[in-house]
Amino acid sequence: MTRFKFTLEYDGSEFVGWQRQDNGMSVQQALEEAVFKTCAETVTAHAAGRTDAGVHATGQVAHVDVEKQFAPDKLQAALNFHLKPWPIAIVVAEVAPPDFHARFSATGRAYLYRIINRRPPLTIEEGKAWLVNAPLDAAAMHDAAQVLVGKHDFSTFRASLCQAQSPVKTLTRLAVSRAGDEIDIIAEARSFLHHQVRNMVGTLRLVGEGKWTKADLRAALDAHDRTKGGPTAPPQGLYLTGVKYDPLPQP
Amino acid sequence: MTRFKFTLEYDGSEFVGWQRQDNGMSVQQALEEAVFKTCAETVTAHAAGRTDAGVHATGQVAHVDVEKQFAPDKLQAALNFHLKPWPIAIVVAEVAPPDFHARFSATGRAYLYRIINRRPPLTIEEGKAWLVNAPLDAAAMHDAAQVLVGKHDFSTFRASLCQAQSPVKTLTRLAVSRAGDEIDIIAEARSFLHHQVRNMVGTLRLVGEGKWTKADLRAALDAHDRTKGGPTAPPQGLYLTGVKYDPLPQP
Repeated sequence: MTRFKFTLEYDGSEFVGWQRQDNGMSVQQALEEAVFKTCAETVTAHAAGRTDAGVHATGQVAHVDVEKQFAPDKLQAALNFHLKPWPIAIVVAEVAPPDFHARFSATGRAYLYRIINRRPPLTIEEGKAWLVNAPLDAAAMHDAAQVLVGKHDFSTFRASLCQAQSPVKTLTRLAVSRAGDEIDIIAEARSFLHHQVRNMVGTLRLVGEGKWTKADLRAALDAHDRTKGGPTAPPQGLYLTGVKYDPLPQP
Repeated sequence: MTRFKFTLEYDGSEFVGWQRQDNGMSVQQALEEAVFKTCAETVTAHAAGRTDAGVHATGQVAHVDVEKQFAPDKLQAALNFHLKPWPIAIVVAEVAPPDFHARFSATGRAYLYRIINRRPPLTIEEGKAWLVNAPLDAAAMHDAAQVLVGKHDFSTFRASLCQAQSPVKTLTRLAVSRAGDEIDIIAEARSFLHHQVRNMVGTLRLVGEGKWTKADLRAALDAHDRTKGGPTAPPQGLYLTGVKYDPLPQP
């Protein structure tokens, strides 16, 4: 049996999310079915981040155990063939040690949230970013965002359905920058609470519009109360861009 | 009567191209119908570049004549409303002088061609770029591309259906650069022949793969013969990014 580590890219628009659901296709199910079509093995795929419906990935990581022997590039090509027509691609396939776990071995996760800040509707970027009409002050958003960096109780930015044992997380980076009418927000931490990035982004929008100050953001964080935070930003702006691990042993 | 100049963005995937056709929706028809829904006027929209089916635009320019009085931003908002659900947005609307013509007044056009150079299929970028599996040498492509810059008879890169009076054009820029697995090709000229950019890109691919040298490209250009050029690159990688004009008179 070999444990394979896959780096995955997908367009989340067509999925109910990473995790299997009864109400539609999930990334997990598509990947597991591709493994079955490739080698008639029923596997369970484990991912670093259980992305929600509509959330995209350019650097999701998942692992599966396969009995049949494969060179990683051969397995990658076969799975990519069987993943069609789903918008999922395995961009890297590697052999991992038996104790590697996509979720539990991860030492860092990085997300990108894309806002397009303009009045006209989205065309080419429809479903790939959040359209915000009101002018946003990205510099003010970045400055305020630094309040959230560090080790905090993030209850204010935690979904009610979140299953994490503790609301305390260490946010290592939260950077807001503008290029033309696009505002990119990069968030990095060892791990995040459910909806944490989208809740932080929805709250930073209030700062960008001038409705909230940096002090308001700090007060909301300190309240440890979801009702004191801003609204949840929509899923289509969010991208899981990368997951960090200790280096794999070289084959 | 007022002549309005619109800067347009659209996702070409859903259209038969800019120009009205019997076999499907065109950008021109969608825009003209939006004008009719806004003010019950039947207009003809003229564009700087008659993009083909599947070709995208971030900076197409078109003009229309409207009898009813509108502030440009009000007309823009009404048209964007009526353009839904088509993936077309007017990103800038301006009043232009009566002798302004989107096509004939243009002094420069800029295109971007996006290649994703990797083996895994496209997901998020599906329909937005050309997937090329074989490794391409972008530096060699850029070096060879400089053969095409300048005033030449571009018959080798001209579609058989091209209606231009002369095959002689002056290419002012052809720049190839790589960032990660994306190769971007920027082409600028006062005007282009039909399929010229896609034919140049399809031929530069041969250079990138090492099948053609810079000298081969020069010989093909000098042959003035379409059959001596490379294949036509597909439409979905092409973006009309901008059109230049002499400055409009200030209102």
